[in-house]
Amino acid sequence: MKLYRPTEECGIFGIYGHPEAANLTYLGLYALQHRGQEACGIVSSDGRSLYTHRSMGLVADVFGNQEIFGNLPGESAIGHVRYSTTGDSVLKNVQPIKVDYSRGSIAIAHNGNLVNAQYIKDELEAWGSIFQTTMDTEVILHLLATSKHSSLEDRIIDALGRIKGAYCLLFLTETRMVAARDPHGFRPLCLGKLGDAWVVASESCALDLIEAEFVREIEPGEIVVITKDGLTSHFPHKKIEPAPCIFEFVYFARPDSYIFGKNVYQVRKDFGRQLCREHRIDADIVIPVPDSGVPAALGYAQEAGIPFELGLIRNHYVGRTFIEPQQSIRHFGVKIKLNPVREVLKGKRVVVIDDSIVRGTTSRKIVKMVRNAGASEVHVRISSPPTSYPCYYGIDTPTRKELISSSHTIEEIRKYITADSLGYLSEEGLLQAVGAGSNPFCKACFSGGYPITFPRLMAEPQLDLF
Amino acid sequence: MKLYRPTEECGIFGIYGHPEAANLTYLGLYALQHRGQEACGIVSSDGRSLYTHRSMGLVADVFGNQEIFGNLPGESAIGHVRYSTTGDSVLKNVQPIKVDYSRGSIAIAHNGNLVNAQYIKDELEAWGSIFQTTMDTEVILHLLATSKHSSLEDRIIDALGRIKGAYCLLFLTETRMVAARDPHGFRPLCLGKLGDAWVVASESCALDLIEAEFVREIEPGEIVVITKDGLTSHFPHKKIEPAPCIFEFVYFARPDSYIFGKNVYQVRKDFGRQLCREHRIDADIVIPVPDSGVPAALGYAQEAGIPFELGLIRNHYVGRTFIEPQQSIRHFGVKIKLNPVREVLKGKRVVVIDDSIVRGTTSRKIVKMVRNAGASEVHVRISSPPTSYPCYYGIDTPTRKELISSSHTIEEIRKYITADSLGYLSEEGLLQAVGAGSNPFCKACFSGGYPITFPRLMAEPQLDLF
Amino acid sequence: MKLYRPTEECGIFGIYGHPEAANLTYLGLYALQHRGQEACGIVSSDGRSLYTHRSMGLVADVFGNQEIFGNLPGESAIGHVRYSTTGDSVLKNVQPIKVDYSRGSIAIAHNGNLVNAQYIKDELEAWGSIFQTTMDTEVILHLLATSKHSSLEDRIIDALGRIKGAYCLLFLTETRMVAARDPHGFRPLCLGKLGDAWVVASESCALDLIEAEFVREIEPGEIVVITKDGLTSHFPHKKIEPAPCIFEFVYFARPDSYIFGKNVYQVRKDFGRQLCREHRIDADIVIPVPDSGVPAALGYAQEAGIPFELGLIRNHYVGRTFIEPQQSIRHFGVKIKLNPVREVLKGKRVVVIDDSIVRGTTSRKIVKMVRNAGASEVHVRISSPPTSYPCYYGIDTPTRKELISSSHTIEEIRKYITADSLGYLSEEGLLQAVGAGSNPFCKACFSGGYPITFPRLMAEPQLDLF
Amino acid sequence: MKLYRPTEECGIFGIYGHPEAANLTYLGLYALQHRGQEACGIVSSDGRSLYTHRSMGLVADVFGNQEIFGNLPGESAIGHVRYSTTGDSVLKNVQPIKVDYSRGSIAIAHNGNLVNAQYIKDELEAWGSIFQTTMDTEVILHLLATSKHSSLEDRIIDALGRIKGAYCLLFLTETRMVAARDPHGFRPLCLGKLGDAWVVASESCALDLIEAEFVREIEPGEIVVITKDGLTSHFPHKKIEPAPCIFEFVYFARPDSYIFGKNVYQVRKDFGRQLCREHRIDADIVIPVPDSGVPAALGYAQEAGIPFELGLIRNHYVGRTFIEPQQSIRHFGVKIKLNPVREVLKGKRVVVIDDSIVRGTTSRKIVKMVRNAGASEVHVRISSPPTSYPCYYGIDTPTRKELISSSHTIEEIRKYITADSLGYLSEEGLLQAVGAGSNPFCKACFSGGYPITFPRLMAEPQLDLF
Repeated sequence: MKLYRPTEECGIFGIYGHPEAANLTYLGLYALQHRGQEACGIVSSDGRSLYTHRSMGLVADVFGNQEIFGNLPGESAIGHVRYSTTGDSVLKNVQPIKVDYSRGSIAIAHNGNLVNAQYIKDELEAWGSIFQTTMDTEVILHLLATSKHSSLEDRIIDALGRIKGAYCLLFLTETRMVAARDPHGFRPLCLGKLGDAWVVASESCALDLIEAEFVREIEPGEIVVITKDGLTSHFPHKKIEPAPCIFEFVYFARPDSYIFGKNVYQVRKDFGRQLCREHRIDADIVIPVPDSGVPAALGYAQEAGIPFELGLIRNHYVGRTFIEPQQSIRHFGVKIKLNPVREVLKGKRVVVIDDSIVRGTTSRKIVKMVRNAGASEVHVRISSPPTSYPCYYGIDTPTRKELISSSHTIEEIRKYITADSLGYLSEEGLLQAVGAGSNPFCKACFSGGYPITFPRLMAEPQLDLF
Repeated sequence: MKLYRPTEECGIFGIYGHPEAANLTYLGLYALQHRGQEACGIVSSDGRSLYTHRSMGLVADVFGNQEIFGNLPGESAIGHVRYSTTGDSVLKNVQPIKVDYSRGSIAIAHNGNLVNAQYIKDELEAWGSIFQTTMDTEVILHLLATSKHSSLEDRIIDALGRIKGAYCLLFLTETRMVAARDPHGFRPLCLGKLGDAWVVASESCALDLIEAEFVREIEPGEIVVITKDGLTSHFPHKKIEPAPCIFEFVYFARPDSYIFGKNVYQVRKDFGRQLCREHRIDADIVIPVPDSGVPAALGYAQEAGIPFELGLIRNHYVGRTFIEPQQSIRHFGVKIKLNPVREVLKGKRVVVIDDSIVRGTTSRKIVKMVRNAGASEVHVRISSPPTSYPCYYGIDTPTRKELISSSHTIEEIRKYITADSLGYLSEEGLLQAVGAGSNPFCKACFSGGYPITFPRLMAEPQLDLF
Repeated sequence: MKLYRPTEECGIFGIYGHPEAANLTYLGLYALQHRGQEACGIVSSDGRSLYTHRSMGLVADVFGNQEIFGNLPGESAIGHVRYSTTGDSVLKNVQPIKVDYSRGSIAIAHNGNLVNAQYIKDELEAWGSIFQTTMDTEVILHLLATSKHSSLEDRIIDALGRIKGAYCLLFLTETRMVAARDPHGFRPLCLGKLGDAWVVASESCALDLIEAEFVREIEPGEIVVITKDGLTSHFPHKKIEPAPCIFEFVYFARPDSYIFGKNVYQVRKDFGRQLCREHRIDADIVIPVPDSGVPAALGYAQEAGIPFELGLIRNHYVGRTFIEPQQSIRHFGVKIKLNPVREVLKGKRVVVIDDSIVRGTTSRKIVKMVRNAGASEVHVRISSPPTSYPCYYGIDTPTRKELISSSHTIEEIRKYITADSLGYLSEEGLLQAVGAGSNPFCKACFSGGYPITFPRLMAEPQLDLF
Repeated sequence: MKLYRPTEECGIFGIYGHPEAANLTYLGLYALQHRGQEACGIVSSDGRSLYTHRSMGLVADVFGNQEIFGNLPGESAIGHVRYSTTGDSVLKNVQPIKVDYSRGSIAIAHNGNLVNAQYIKDELEAWGSIFQTTMDTEVILHLLATSKHSSLEDRIIDALGRIKGAYCLLFLTETRMVAARDPHGFRPLCLGKLGDAWVVASESCALDLIEAEFVREIEPGEIVVITKDGLTSHFPHKKIEPAPCIFEFVYFARPDSYIFGKNVYQVRKDFGRQLCREHRIDADIVIPVPDSGVPAALGYAQEAGIPFELGLIRNHYVGRTFIEPQQSIRHFGVKIKLNPVREVLKGKRVVVIDDSIVRGTTSRKIVKMVRNAGASEVHVRISSPPTSYPCYYGIDTPTRKELISSSHTIEEIRKYITADSLGYLSEEGLLQAVGAGSNPFCKACFSGGYPITFPRLMAEPQLDLF
C-alpha cells in the first residue's frame, strides 16, 4: 500500500495541432495525476512564442481557473506532473522547464532519472555555463544550447547521446514537438491521435479521457519529431535489450492503462491468481489493501474460490499535510487512510492482499488493525517479490537500509508484521503472469541487477545529487 | 452514482473533556468529510471563552496548519462539515455559528433542515431581531436568546419546542456541550467515550478514527447535556414514531459506519443480494459504479454467482471546479471521474450496479461508456427503489420535475439510458434487506409519504428559503 | 507630530443619484484617507439590493481592482475609512455595517464615539437581541430595528433620540440616503452637489477631488434625508450649544479642507502667527515637524521674520508594520520617518514647530536629532495648548496618565524633551486665532470641561468598552 | 513634478561584518525607497551560503514580517530597490540576482544601464550560454562565469572591462562584498562605517537611518573589495573625465542626502535662488509643486522676498493602481495627488515652482488647477533647463518625441501650459549654482552631448532591448 509517500515519479503529456491544446493538456495531466501530486505545469506555443503556467499543487487546483487558459494560447502544448526524484521541491524546479537560447525558446518535460547528470553539469560549469535549477533535466537543455549542430533534431540527438539513465522526454519549441524514450524503455510512453492532432502521453488513460485514439507505444530508443508537416521517427541510438520497469505493473500505473503491450488491471489480476497458486491458504474472506491491491485480491479470490470483501475502507480526502494529535493513537498513520469494517472481519480467517512491503511498518499496522477488528487469522499475500534494492531509474524507493527485505528473511518479516502467514509472489511467477518468458523487464529492485551502471556515490545512501 | 453534486447534507462532531479537543474534532470531521465538502469549522472552549476557525474548503486544507490549533484552546470543541441545504455558500454561513448574547457565548452545529424556519424568522424580525446569516440554524439561537427561561437546558428545550424538521444539533457554551436529535430521528447521531471524554458524532467511523469507544446511538427526541459533572439525558418531546432516513443506508453514510443499529456495508451488500433475487439476469460479469455501488455489486455478484470485476476506474483527484474544453467531448462529465477498462468489458454481457438514478443523464453516459468499451450487453441494476419525490429533511435532491422517475415509467427510463434491461430494488425488498419489517424508516423520497408536513411554498420548486 | 499612531477617527462619504456612485465614493474615501488608514469599505445600492466590499487596508489597496466596482452597482453608495476608536480591529468590525431586518436592508457608516452604547446594548440583549460586532455603531441599527415607528425617518429619529456622544452618520437603504450630525456637532460634515447627485463628506477636500460643488455644512443636530424626490432637512433634537472639536483644526483635518466655517491651512498659519506673538525668540531658522507642523511654522516664520527651512525630511513610504533591528539605534522610532538635514541645521539657533506634545517621547527624540545634527540651540513651539485630558468623542488619545502635560509643568516638560525653551499656544490665543470669541468649541482635551457626561467606567483607563 | 511615473532608476545598499546585516540592509533600502518602488530584494551570506528574499512591492511590505529575517542569516548582505529601466517587471527580473556557477554562489545588485549588453548577450548565447532574465545586469554574471581568471577580483575586472554604460554595482559571495562604480561616475555611491562593519549605499540618507558614519564617496572607476581582512581599493580602468548625473540634484536624490560633494537640499535652494535672479517677476506668493519643488521654491521666495506658501496639498496615500471613473473629471490625474488651497490662491499673483517639465501635460493641469482656485496670474518657473534629450544611463525619460522641449520653443510651451509667464533655469545658472565651473557633469538630457556612444538602435524609440 502506498501511504504518506505521495506517488512517485512523473507523468508527461503533449499535444500538437489542436486549437484547445492547453486545455486538453490539462485534462491529460489530470488523468496522469497518480504519477505525481506535488507540482505541475503546462507550456504552450502559438507558433511564435512559448507560454508557461506552473505551480506547486494538484492539477485541478493549479489550473482551476478559466483565465489561465487565456494565457496559454496556441495549438501545441506539453505538460508535466511531478513528484521529485532529484531536485528540491521548489517552484523553480517545477517542470516543464522553459529557456531562451540562441535559437529561440524551448521547453522540456521529463519522466525518469539521469545517472550522469552531475558529471555533465560539472563539465559545463567549468566552461562558464550557469544553471538555473537543481534538476537533472536542465543538463539536457545546456547540451542542446552548446551543441554545434544546426537543426533541432541533430542537437537533440547530440544531447541524448551524452546522457545516461531513464527518460521519457517531451520538447516543445515555437514550431515543433519532439518525444524521446531512452534505449532501455524504462518508463512507458504512448502515441495517440485526436482528429488531426498528435498526442503523446505517459499512459493510455490520458488518451482515453480526451477521447484520443491509441496509435502505438513509442519504442525504446525512438525519437519522434512532430511538425506541421507531420511525424517522423528516428532511432539514433545503438539498439539494446529493453528493460521496462516491472513496478509500473505492480502498482505505479493506473489499472485502466495499457502499457508495455498489456492492460494493467488484467496483469494485476493475473499476479493475484499466480500468487494464489503459489501461496494458497484456507480462509473465509480475501480483502485488498485499497486501492492498489484490489485487482490482485480479485484475482486471488477468484482463483481460490474464497469470497472477496471490502474489509478496509479508504478515505480519499487526504490533504498534503496532516496535523496529528500529540497523544499516541495506535497505528495513526494508517488510520487516516483506512478504517476496518468490523462486521466483515469479525471471527473470520482473512487473507490480506497488498502489492508490496517497503519498510514493513505500514503492513504491521494493517495486520494489527484487521486483528483488532476481530479477525481470527490474518494471512498476508504480496503480489510482487521482496523489494531489496533501491531504484535509480525514477521510482522514489528508500535506501537499501530501509528496505526491510534487504536485511530480513520472509519469516522475520512475517514475525515483524505479526501475520499468521506471509507469502510473496515469486520472480518467476511474476514474469510468467506478465507473459515475459524471455526476461525483457528491469527487475533491479528485486535482484539488484541494474541495467545501467551508475556512479558509486549514487549507491548508498541515495542522495539528492544536485 | 454521485457526480458533480458534492455529497449533500452535513456532518457534526463534538468532544468534551479532552486536552486535545480541537485536534480530535478535526480528525472527527476528517472522517465525516463525505457528508460535506464545501466548508467546515471548529469552535472550542477553554471554560472561559469560545474560539472559532471556519472556512470554505476541505477539512485537511482548512486545518492544515499547526498554528490553527494554538488558536483553538480548551478541553471541549464542536465541529461541522457542510454542503449547504439552505443558505448561500458564503463564509458567514459556514458552521458552527457562534454568537454572544445576554448569557454569554454559544455555538451551534446543525445537520438537517428545519421546515418552519422562515415562519419563526419573520416573527422574530417583526419584533426587531437582526439576523446575521441566511441559515435556518440561526433561528434556534434567536429562540434561545429570547427565551424567558433561565437555565441553558430549559432555553434549549424551549427553542426546540418551537422548531419543526430534521435536526441533529450540537451546542457548545463556555462550560457545557449539548447534543439533540429530532423526535423522528431522521439523521444518525452517536455517543462515544475516549478515556474520560465524551464524544458525539454523526457516524461511528469518526469514533473509530480517534479510537473512541462506541457507547450507543443518541435516540430520536433525546437531548444529552454534558458538563464537568457528567452526562444527563432528557426526553422533553412527545414520543412519536421514528423515521430514520433510508437513504443514509443507500448511499450517504460511509460503509464502515454503524448507524440505525446496522453496519452500512453489510446492509448495502444485502441490498445487492435482494436486488439479484428480484432482477436476476444471465451475464458474464458484474461491475459497480464506484465507489458507492461497490458493496451492492459484491452482494449481487455473490448471489448471482457471476464474477465481480472493476470495469470502471475512478479518478479521485477531482477538484472543486473543472475547466472543460469547449469542443464537445462525449460523456465528458462522467469521464472526468470514471474510465472504462476495455480489456475487462470487451465482448462481455455486463451487469452495472448503481445505488440510484436521479436525473438519468449520468446513467445514460455510463451505459454508453460501457458499451463503447466493447460490452455486448449492458444491464443496469439499482440498489434502491425509484426516487420520485424530493427530500425536505436534509438531503439535497433536485425538484420533482428533475427526478426522472417522477414522470417516467421504468421502461421509459431504460430506453432513455439505453440499457438492455433495468431493474430497481423494490420498496419491500429494501425494507426486508434492512430488516425493517414494521416500517420505521422515512421513505418519502420513494413514496411521497412525508412524516412532517411543511409549508406549501417549499414543495415545488424547492427554493432556498432564506 | 503623529508617529506610529495611525491617524485616528474615521471619515465618511456618500453619494446619491450618480451612475458611478461606488467609484466616486472610492475617490471620496481616498481623499479622506488621512482620517483612518486601518480599514475601509463601501456599500452601494441599485434600488433593489445593497452590495458590500470591505477590508482591512488602505483605500487604494482595498479597491485597487476594476472588478470590485462591477460588484458594487447602483446610483447610490456610502463609504467609510476607519481607525478604530471602539471595537477590535477585525474584519467584522469594518464599516459600513450592513444588516437585513424586517423592513429590508440598511447600511450605516459612523464617525465619532457613543458614550452610552454599552448601556443600550445591555438592555437590548436582556430582551434577546444578538449583536454581530463589537462596535458602538451597531446599537443604532438595533434601535432602528426595534423602533415601533413605521417610516425610516421616524425610526432614525427614534434611535438617535436614545444615543449620546459624538456622531456623524450616513445611512443607506435600497432607496434612500440619510445623513445625521449630533447636536454638539463634534465632527465636521458637509454637503455637496455633483450635477444632480447629492454628496455628503466628512471634509470638503473629498468634494474637491470629485469636482463636486460645496453647498454647505450639515448643521449640528440636523438630519438630512435624500430620496429620488430630493432632499429634506430635519431638526428633531432640542437645540443646544454646539461644540465642534478644536483638534480638527490643530492637526486632524486636511489643510486644504474647509470645516466649521474656516480653511484649515489659514487657521493653522494663524496659530503659528499667534504662537510667535506669545513666544517670540531670537533664532536663525524656523523648521516644522512635517507634515502637520508646516502651516504653523510658516505662520511663525512670517510673523517672526526668521527664514523658514525644511530641516527635517519626512519619508512617506512607511508601512503598517516595521521590523526594527535588535541592536539599539538611538531615536529609532522617529528616524524611520524623519531625517535631519545637517547642512541646514549646523551651527544654527533653531525654532522647531509642532502641533502638539502627547507623551513627550517623540518630541524628545526630535530635539536630540536636531541638536546632534549641529544646531546650537533648539527652541520648541507648540501650536496648541497642553493636552491634559483624554478625548471621549472620537479622537484616539491615550489615557490621562500617559499625557505628559496632565502631570508635568511646562518647565518639567522642557527639561524632559531637552529643549532650550518651550512655548505652547495659549487657550485664549488659540480661540482668538480661530476667531471664536464666544467659545463655541469643545476644548475638553485642554480644560477637562466635557460637553457630554459619560459613564464613570469610561474615564480611566480608557478601555475598549465592547 | 513626478506623477504616475513611479520614481525611476534603482537604489543599492550593502553591509559587511554586522550580526544584523539583513535587517540593516532592509532599513537602508527603506531610506532609498524613493529610488525605486516597483520591487526589492535582499541577498545575505553567512560565510557558507547565500540566502535570498525578493518580491514585487515596497520595502516595508516585502519585508514586513520578522520571519523573513530568520531566513536571511549571516553578517553580510546586499539589497536593491528598483524601477525597471531594462527588463520586464516580472519576479525573475527583481534584483539582486543570485546564481550558482563553477566557483560557488554570487549575487549582484545594479543601479544604472549598460549600453552594450545586447551585443555581449548575443555573443555568449552563440556559444551556448542560457540566460535566465531579461536584465542587462545578467551579462555581467555570465562574463564572470566564463572569465579565465581565477581570483574573484580579476574575474570582476575582466567582466567590467567588457561592459559600457552607467553602473554602480554591489557583488556578494559567500565571503566577500565588492562595490564598483563606472568610470564616468554617472550615479552616486558612498562608503560608510557602522562600528567595524563596512556599508555601501547609493545615497548618504541610508547611512543616516542606520546611524552609520559617512566615510567618503566611492570614486568613478573605483572597485572596492571588502573581506574579513578589510577593504582594498582598485582602479583598473583608464582614467577619464567624470560625468555625474546633474538630474540627481534636480529631482532624483533625497534632499537630505550628500552626493557628488554637496547636500542636495542646499543645491536645490540655490537652483531656486538662481532661477529667481534669471526670471524675477512681481507676484504675491511663491508656491512649490510638492514634494520635489519645495527647496527650489524656498530659494526663489527668499531671493525674491515674496512669501512662500503651500498652495497645493499633496495626498501621499497613492497606491500602485488607480481606478478612475469613466466620466471625465478635468485634470483628474493631477487631482489624485494634488489639491489647491483656494483660500491661499484666491486673487493672488502666483509663482509656481517645479523641477522640470517632461511632456507638459501635468504642468498644464497644474496651471489650470491654480487658476481655477482663483489665482489672478500664474507664473511657472522651472529649476532646471529644458529637457530635450532622453537619458540612456539609468533615468527613465520618455523618447525625444514625447519631450515637449525637444520640439517646442519656450513660448510655445508657455502657451500650451497656459501660464502667464514661463522661465527655465539656464544651463550656465544650473552649473554655477552647483559650483561646477569646469563642467564635470553629464548634461546630455539638456544638450544631447552623450558621454558614451551607444548602439544606434537605442536612440529612437527607446525600446526595451532584451
